[in-house]
Amino acid sequence: MQQALALAREAAGLGEVPVGALAVHDGKIIGTGFNRREIDRNPLAHAEIFAMDAAAKALGVWRLTGVTLYVTLEPCAMCAGALVQSRVTRLVFGTLDPKAGAVGSLYNLAEEPRHNHRLQVTSGIMADDCRQVLKDFFARLRTRKQDK
Amino acid sequence: MQQALALAREAAGLGEVPVGALAVHDGKIIGTGFNRREIDRNPLAHAEIFAMDAAAKALGVWRLTGVTLYVTLEPCAMCAGALVQSRVTRLVFGTLDPKAGAVGSLYNLAEEPRHNHRLQVTSGIMADDCRQVLKDFFARLRTRKQDK
Repeated sequence: MQQALALAREAAGLGEVPVGALAVHDGKIIGTGFNRREIDRNPLAHAEIFAMDAAAKALGVWRLTGVTLYVTLEPCAMCAGALVQSRVTRLVFGTLDPKAGAVGSLYNLAEEPRHNHRLQVTSGIMADDCRQVLKDFFARLRTRKQDK
Repeated sequence: MQQALALAREAAGLGEVPVGALAVHDGKIIGTGFNRREIDRNPLAHAEIFAMDAAAKALGVWRLTGVTLYVTLEPCAMCAGALVQSRVTRLVFGTLDPKAGAVGSLYNLAEEPRHNHRLQVTSGIMADDCRQVLKDFFARLRTRKQDK
């Protein structure tokens, strides 16, 4: 999660909402990503999507069985749905997203019994740090807006 | 929807589960896609994702306001979540997906009142044709498996 947080900070440095993710397989990092929605002008450019895309390329298959995805923020519906589509085995995330979180906050797509795949979920890992990086980002954004 | 169906048939010809999608803005097609999960070996390679990605590139923004997305099959959670993330205005789909559909079958992410964006949804357009192309595909798959 330390490394996912470093990726989130990289996003913040580029003016992006700081969320970082990485995909791990057999103890090796096979995919990383951070939110790049503004830079890429692309609604799909979430941290988790980059990490899963890279993981699929690294493994050469669409089934990401055995992969653990670490992400600083609770995934949204798109990313949680992508984790299910990918058959990722385990999800570890930092802080909750009460407004758009799809793994416990609004609903729980990762552990939905009607899906053909469910993930093992661990949440709250380094939650304070993961939340703080977001808080700092939005505080800076507000200050900058007031300065204008 | 005729054109989305043609894209679905293109997918079937390549051995992919036949689903086709297109994104329309101001009466112009600005993005198309069909399911390419097997060819691309990528769990994210759904028809809708390609259409939205192309639409964002065409418009040069991540907000796909004013876009209508046509797709032959009810979107899954990943694609429905992506439609919300993209702020796509309207979704038109063909047949329901009782096993994984996220716009009415299992739940309804496109019209979820707690999200910060909701889509206008029209379903059942050319539903018989959209379902038939899937039925034919799976029937051929079964025959081929029996022949082996």
